Formats: sequence, C-alpha cells, structure tokens
Amino acid sequence: MADRIYRVNMSDLTSTIEDVPEAWAGHGGRGLTSTIVAAEVEPTCHPLGKHNKIVFAPGLLAGTYAANSGRLNVGAKSPLTGGIKESNAGGTAAQFFARLGIKALIVEGKPEKDVLYCINVKKDGVDISEVPELKGKGNFDTINAIMAKQGENTAVISIGPAGEMKMAAANISVKDPEGHIRSAGRGGLGAVMGSKNVKCIAIEADDSSEVQIHDPEAFKAAAKVFAKGLIDHPVSGQGLRTYGTAVVLNIMNEAGGLPTRNFSAGQFEGAEKISGEHMFDVIEERGGKTSHACHKGCVIQCSQHYHDKDKKFLTSGFEYETIWAMGADCEVDNLDQIAEADHLMDDIGIDSIEFPVAVGVAMEGGLLPWGDGPGILKLLKEDVAKGTPLGRLLGSGAAVVGKAYGITRVPVVKNQAMPAYDPRAVKGIGITYATSPMGADHTAGYATATNIMNVGGSIDPLKKEGQVELSRNLQAATAAIDSAGLCLFVAFPALDIPECFGAIVDMLNARFGLSLTGDDVGALGLSILKTERGFNLAAGMTNKDDRLPEFMAEEQLPPHNVLWDFTGEEIDAFWDF
Amino acid sequence: MADRIYRVNMSDLTSTIEDVPEAWAGHGGRGLTSTIVAAEVEPTCHPLGKHNKIVFAPGLLAGTYAANSGRLNVGAKSPLTGGIKESNAGGTAAQFFARLGIKALIVEGKPEKDVLYCINVKKDGVDISEVPELKGKGNFDTINAIMAKQGENTAVISIGPAGEMKMAAANISVKDPEGHIRSAGRGGLGAVMGSKNVKCIAIEADDSSEVQIHDPEAFKAAAKVFAKGLIDHPVSGQGLRTYGTAVVLNIMNEAGGLPTRNFSAGQFEGAEKISGEHMFDVIEERGGKTSHACHKGCVIQCSQHYHDKDKKFLTSGFEYETIWAMGADCEVDNLDQIAEADHLMDDIGIDSIEFPVAVGVAMEGGLLPWGDGPGILKLLKEDVAKGTPLGRLLGSGAAVVGKAYGITRVPVVKNQAMPAYDPRAVKGIGITYATSPMGADHTAGYATATNIMNVGGSIDPLKKEGQVELSRNLQAATAAIDSAGLCLFVAFPALDIPECFGAIVDMLNARFGLSLTGDDVGALGLSILKTERGFNLAAGMTNKDDRLPEFMAEEQLPPHNVLWDFTGEEIDAFWDF
Repeated sequence: MADRIYRVNMSDLTSTIEDVPEAWAGHGGRGLTSTIVAAEVEPTCHPLGKHNKIVFAPGLLAGTYAANSGRLNVGAKSPLTGGIKESNAGGTAAQFFARLGIKALIVEGKPEKDVLYCINVKKDGVDISEVPELKGKGNFDTINAIMAKQGENTAVISIGPAGEMKMAAANISVKDPEGHIRSAGRGGLGAVMGSKNVKCIAIEADDSSEVQIHDPEAFKAAAKVFAKGLIDHPVSGQGLRTYGTAVVLNIMNEAGGLPTRNFSAGQFEGAEKISGEHMFDVIEERGGKTSHACHKGCVIQCSQHYHDKDKKFLTSGFEYETIWAMGADCEVDNLDQIAEADHLMDDIGIDSIEFPVAVGVAMEGGLLPWGDGPGILKLLKEDVAKGTPLGRLLGSGAAVVGKAYGITRVPVVKNQAMPAYDPRAVKGIGITYATSPMGADHTAGYATATNIMNVGGSIDPLKKEGQVELSRNLQAATAAIDSAGLCLFVAFPALDIPECFGAIVDMLNARFGLSLTGDDVGALGLSILKTERGFNLAAGMTNKDDRLPEFMAEEQLPPHNVLWDFTGEEIDAFWDF
Repeated sequence: MADRIYRVNMSDLTSTIEDVPEAWAGHGGRGLTSTIVAAEVEPTCHPLGKHNKIVFAPGLLAGTYAANSGRLNVGAKSPLTGGIKESNAGGTAAQFFARLGIKALIVEGKPEKDVLYCINVKKDGVDISEVPELKGKGNFDTINAIMAKQGENTAVISIGPAGEMKMAAANISVKDPEGHIRSAGRGGLGAVMGSKNVKCIAIEADDSSEVQIHDPEAFKAAAKVFAKGLIDHPVSGQGLRTYGTAVVLNIMNEAGGLPTRNFSAGQFEGAEKISGEHMFDVIEERGGKTSHACHKGCVIQCSQHYHDKDKKFLTSGFEYETIWAMGADCEVDNLDQIAEADHLMDDIGIDSIEFPVAVGVAMEGGLLPWGDGPGILKLLKEDVAKGTPLGRLLGSGAAVVGKAYGITRVPVVKNQAMPAYDPRAVKGIGITYATSPMGADHTAGYATATNIMNVGGSIDPLKKEGQVELSRNLQAATAAIDSAGLCLFVAFPALDIPECFGAIVDMLNARFGLSLTGDDVGALGLSILKTERGFNLAAGMTNKDDRLPEFMAEEQLPPHNVLWDFTGEEIDAFWDF
C-alpha cells in the first residue's frame, strides 16, 4: 500500500485521500509538514483564520521497528510567532498513522458552526463527528472519552481548554500507550487546531498492516546498530534513562547557565531540590517508575511516572524544561508543586515552557511573589483553565505578558519564550534561539550538547568562536532527524558514534530503496531550514527577527557575568549556505 | 535668540543646551521629531529601554500669531507599533517652548532610581526634580499640583497612571489654557515617557520673549489671508466650530462607513444619540460651551465644555473618535457615559481610540455585553487605573487583546487600532491606514475629506481609482502641516482655497526668510514620510506590515456590502516616489 495524503476540509466537513505529489515524496515528519505549509499556506494569513492549515505527519521511519522512531510532527503557521511552526511529540499517533499508510493529515478551512468536532481516522477513510460533550474538557477526560468509545488501543491527538480558547501558548496532546500525555508543546499549534473547532483526532489501530520496507534485512541490521548506539551512549543509555531529562538541571546550574528569576541569574539556590537526582529519589521512595517509554520501540525511556505524596500517579513526561521554567525561572523549589502544575498544564493543554516563562515575566511585573508555587497552581486552575482575562493574558505567552507589564527583560525570540539555557552562558544555543525559524527553541539545534556536555566535540560555551557553524550543523541535523521521525535524543549517540549516525542513513535507504549518503541527509536538513525561513520572510520577517532581546547584551549574567555579544552581522552569517 | 536643542539625560539627570545641527535647521514639529528619532534612536532598540528617546518639538510656526499654530509634536520609537511614532496635540506647551527658543526637547536615557521626576524647563535651562508625591496621580491632579506650585500660567506635559505603568496605549497629556487636557494620543508615547520615569514636564511662561520673524509685514499679511480661509471654509469655520469633530458622526453613519460592533457593520442604530448635533443640544441645554480653543490663536475652536446632568463641567476636547470608539464600536448610545469615560481616559492618560477599540475586541471575546457603558466605566476605574491584569491587558491595545481572546476580527495595522472610518467603505482612508509609517491613523492622510466630504475634490469612496495617489498627496501635505505645527483642520480650507494654502507657504517664508514654493512644501512632506518609513524598515518592518487585516477582505461590510479589495502590489505602489 502506497502512502497517501489525507485531507480534511473543516469548512464543509469533507475529506479526500490523495496520492503523494512527486515533490513531497522524499519528505516525512518535519520536512513534510514544513514543505506542505510552505506550499499551501499563504504566509501572511491570519494564523487562526480559515487560510491556515495544520498538518500532522509521521516521520520517514515511523511504524518501523527502528528504535525511537515514533515522533509525530505537527506544522502550521504559528499564532505565537507569526512564522512557520513545527512541533513534535511522542505518543502513539505517528506509528498508527504510518501503519494506516498516512503520510500526512492536512486539516484546512474553518467551520461555520460553533461546535467541536472529532476527526476519526480509519483504515477506510475519515469521518468527522460532532463532540459537543467534550467542550471545555481537559485532555485526560478527552482521551478517556475516546478510549471508552473506541477502545483503549486508539491513538488520540487532542487539545484542552487552552486550545479551544485559542491561546497562543496552547499545545497539542498526543496519547501515550497508557493514556497519559505527550505534548507538541511550542508555538501555539493547539490554538490552530482550536480555531478549526477540532477538539480531537482519533486514529484507529491497524495491527494487521505493516509499513513496507524495501530491504528488510538491511533495515534489520541497521536498526540493530542504531539501537545499540542509543543504549551504549552514556547520555541516552544511562543519564536520560535514569534521571529523565531533568538530569540536565544540576549540569546547567553548575555551568552557570540555568536561567533563574526571569533570566536575571544563571544559578538557582534551590537547584538541588528540583534536580533529576532528587526526582529519582522521590520516585523510588514513592513507588513510581523512573524509566518509561512514551511510545513502542523507545529504548531511551526518559519518561517516568511521578507519584504524589500519597503514592498515587501524578504525572509523566515530567521534563527538565517544565521543572526549570516553573522552578528556577519562577524560583519555585518544590518539585511536588511543579509536578502538579505539569499535570494541570497537560490537562489544560498549555505549553509548559511558554506558560511558566510568562509567569516569570509577570512575577517581575508584580503579579505574584517569586517562588509562589501555590499561586501558580491557582493561576492554572482558576484563570488559565477558566479563561479569565488574566488566564488569557498568561496564555498568550511571555512576549504579550511582557508588553502588558511594560517590562524590558522579556526572554523571547520571535515572540517565543526561551527554554532552559541562558544564551549568555551557552552561546551556541543563543545562535539557535536567534536563527531558528521556529523562534527560541532548544530542540532546533541543541548546541548545549557540544557547549556543555562535550557531545559531538567541545566548544567553549562562553566564547563566540565556532558557535554559528555548530548551530548550523546541529539545526540541519535536527531537521533531518525530525524528518525521520526520530526522537531528538538519538542525536547524542549519533554525534559521538559514527556507526550510529550511519545506521540512520542505512535505515532510510533500506526503508525506501534509496542510496543516500550522510551528506545527503545534511543537505536535506539545510533545505528544510531554507524552506522554513523562506516562509517566514514571505510572512514579513527579516533578519531583525533573528536577534536576542536587548537586555541580554546589557545585563551581565551571574556567576560568569557574561553578556550576549554577537553582532547582527555575525548572526546573519548563519544563513550563508 | 537663535533656537536651540534642549537635551535631558535621565540616566545621570543632566541636561545640555545645544546649537541646532545644520541638518535639522529646516525642520520643525513632526519633521524634526522624526528626523531626530531616525538619526539618534537605534531602530531595533526596545521602545521602553534606555536607548529609546522621546522628542518634543513645537512646529515651525509655533509661537507666532499664525492661527492654529500651537500643536506640540512628540516623537519616539513606539511601544505599540514597534516603529517610529509622531503624535501631536494642542494645548499651550508648543507656544511656550517656541517662546523660550526651544526647537526641540530630547529626553534620553533611563534612571536607575525608581522614582518619578519632573523636568522643569525654564528660560535659563532645565532642572530635574523628584516628584514622588505624584506617583499614581491622574493627569488632572498632576496639572493642578504644578499650577499650585509654579503658577497657573505654566505649560504642562504629563502622563497618568497608564504611562507610569508603561501601557502601550498610554498617551501624553498637554495642559490647555484652562488646565484641561489635550492628548498626543496614539502609539503609546506615554509609556516611553513613563519608562524614563518622567511624570511631567513643566514649562515656564516667558511672555517677554517673542518668536523672531524675518519679515513681520509679509507674515502679518499672510497670516490674515490664512485666518480668513479658516473662517470662510464651511468645515473649519462652521461645522467644527459648532458641533466639534463629532459633526462627522452622522455623516459617516449616513455614508455607511461608521465602524460598528467591532467593525462588523458600517451603520449604528444609536448614531443620532451620540451625534455632534445631539451633543450641541445637550451642551446648550446644560450651559456648557460649544466653541472652545485648545490654545491661543485657534480660530476653529472645535473643542467644547461638556457638562453633566448637574450642569457641572465634565469634559472638553470631546472628540468624534472617542465618541465613535466607545459609541458605535462598542454599541454604547449614551453620550453622558462616553463623556465620563472621556474624562477618565484623560485623567488615566490612555488613548481614547486604542482603549475603546480594544474593549470592542474584548466584547467580541465575551468580556462584556455590547453596549455596556457602565461596564466600560468600571473597567477604566477599577482595572485600567489600578493596573489589574485585565487593565494591563486592555491597556496594551487592540492587537494584544485580539491575541489574548483568539479573535480574527482585530481592526489594527502595525498593531495600532483603526480609527472611525471603515476602510471597506472609505477606501482612501484604508490606503492611509495601510501605508502610514504610524500604523492605522486617520490624521496621517485624511482621505475621508475627499472621499466623503468633497473637500479637495471628490473621489468615490467605494472605488479603488485614485485612492493611492490621494492618500500619498494627503500624507505628504499632512507631514508638512504637522511640521509647521498647524492644526490638521487647516487642511480643509487649504485643500479648497488656493490662497489659504499659499498663505501657509508665505508664512513659512516670512518667518525664516526663505523662498519655498508649494512644491517644496510637498517635497518636504514626502521626504519626512521616507525618513519615517526608513526607520520602520530598519526596525524590521516590511511591505507586509502595510496591509489591512485579513477579515476586511473576507467579511462584507453592511450596508454597502463592500470588501477591502486592494492587492499588495496596488498598496505598495504608494511608495513609488
């Protein structure tokens, strides 16, 4: 069965199944979502209007037994940045799509009727049903409702109240094997889904079908080398598996690049209490689970089940970024409070980076005292979930909050909040924040690896030399990894173990009967970046949007007392390729 | 006494008096503020940071006895639009500056100390005093405090709580002869003043000095012709004088271009109740004043004293735009409620276009029912004045509110709210909204005159033909009028009465000993527009910022059921000069 494009028009509630155009055939995942958005979405359109489209695509290796190949990529014009957006998540949806032979699901148009819909994706096509009963429901209730109706073995993509309210920080949830949540968090894609009244997408399991593999033997061999690389590398095989992504917290604190108190310092006094090591101890003590896979075939298992004081499940997919954002950036040193917020943000469907960074900005404006964890929980429950004006303000992201409070220390690029690495102390990630067409995004080119963890070589984080080239190489590699549908954490072994990187290329070749080289994969990544930047330029962005906020060049970051010191010209050199 | 530049550095609380650089010598008013901002402000700087500067300049004819020459121009990088901004107001400050020989006052830097300051401008220089007692005070209290201390005959430029809180819709108030308020309303310049902790500027009267006039006889002759033109023309001499600017309300309603219910219709059922004619009757009945000059030498006298039901003074400078914005756009048909809001907005120091248009957007989002005048008054008193999160949200302007509420019908250009003419039904003003470097601004090129009032010719408002050229000519003429320091309403006679236009040129020549022609004045206007656009492009804007919102091309405006139908290319042709 050849892969097809599924297209749903929400204006007239129709759907079609289309052959894959020649130009899209070599693409998958992010490469495909960005190609489709660039081809079909008018760059200047209103992101919440009928001319925007939202595209869901599994990666090129999705549905195979390649380890960690289950990421779902989502693309659209972003209501947060005003540019092109791709955000991806684990969970089961990508593998389900792939087994149904769906290369991409394009959702376009906008219904006249003010009612919520569920898009049901089945082997024989798509049907669209009204789900008024899900109005205002959290993601967990939504997932449970679908599982109750269509069976537990159904993949679910959904939005919470934040997406329904079209908040610019609304994310998209993807059900994991146990009915918990992984999030395509960034850029407000949940608002785009909400603008089309799509509450959820339910994808039928099709265990009878298999993804076609051109050369199964070669694939098997490559997949084995690949999986071994993931297990052998200390970061993917041990650090992430044991401590989750929060393993990075102490490292960044030690490096003086852990943004604290709304990016006014690089070290947090309470770091130890919110570290991955502390989380490990808490989970062990309460009978949770320290290694958990968000989709079948994940060997890294950075997720976990975090239990509350009563030893009841509280949250999973409890990430460093979330812990840092509400933790160090808002000075909350209580991991249980952050875990509760994580659960609430999953349920409400709001980005657990954008929202707490916005709160940090509001704290600077006097909304709450620093460290007020209970206050943040109240904001989530009473304001964001209910859509009060304050909830809507915070749900609009850090840039809008900064504007409302008249604050100059607003850590955003292209209106998207910076993640957990201060670019003054990790200059490579600063180049990624500045230049990524996605806005400030650590996953777009994780220079922290080479700046701080000595993965893929070693470049002094406090110096400018080599950072632009590093970020460019990593951004290209990331675009390729995102196109393969692989979890980004495969980059750690791929950067350090040549055979592991080669195995990715080999798997792609074996899957499709190609003869790509490593250089071809790098070139693919660069061409995706160009496509994405082309969209942004056509939308009205310029190189002036590739800049970090002014305060980073003027306020020294303790403890290294460093400034962001790249000139515009130096940053613009990123695009010289 | 040659004119000088006064410069105040708020970082170290020093000031200097400088000669006028050659390149600035021919400029005044808007031409000067825009030239200085373009020369000295880094276009990409944070508008509320220390690198922004705010410039106050009287026009070229200020301080002379030319009729209606008392406008004060204020320029800076705008926190609302992110581009260059010039906004002007009547009141007494411009004439006081001119008589002190001050061609411009530049306020730069940013204090370390968290205290408010008053800049005292005197004949022998500037001193800066702390005024902690004015913290949080409204503009009226502020003006009264200064008058009590320094005498009633002191000119005052001030901000209210909105400016102190750095709201992007905060305006700047200028005291009129009686201690009431005229506002430089648009673009959030009050927030820039607030960001520098400047609560107020007090300007000493210097009745002993006179503005130097090169050829007094020629000036006198020209000024006489000019004043006669103002009095003879039916709009400036009768309509505005009798009914104030609200004379336009019934005209626009009749024309089907009165934006109603957040720009979803072009006629308002309650129009009669908020019309200029009705206002006239109310004022007469309550013993107010229908013709009032906001500065010495104004012969148009479009201001008024509007009394409340108890026949007590309630507000002055009660403008069509304000009445329309809270009236038709929010569907409030109670003129007394709007008058009370006008007084509150003056006191709080918030733009009476931006704020109510933002409320209209929020009403569409469900914040308040349409027509809820008391609700709007409560928002002003309880939220905006006190800086609650909701107040800060609304104080950030219509674009931010639209984002927070996830709404696509958001009537802004360059993030600035559209004024009281729907561009679908008055296409000439749409070209002005789209192309003006100021964002949506009717005063930048008042094509309504020729589209609706047959002033300066007649062009069908519903057709595209001739609108781009009309807007360009009007924008150039306006930039020149704004540089002369003349009230924009002189354009009505200047467009229709050749001798009146000639008299403006003659006055400029007589004042400075020049030999400008009418063409020179037009060329000056065009060059100012280019300077302003150059700043915006350097700040990161593109032609994509010269567009009206998408909904205007898709939602027909009743009663004419017209769409905005200019292509991007047609709009961009504006800049072909």
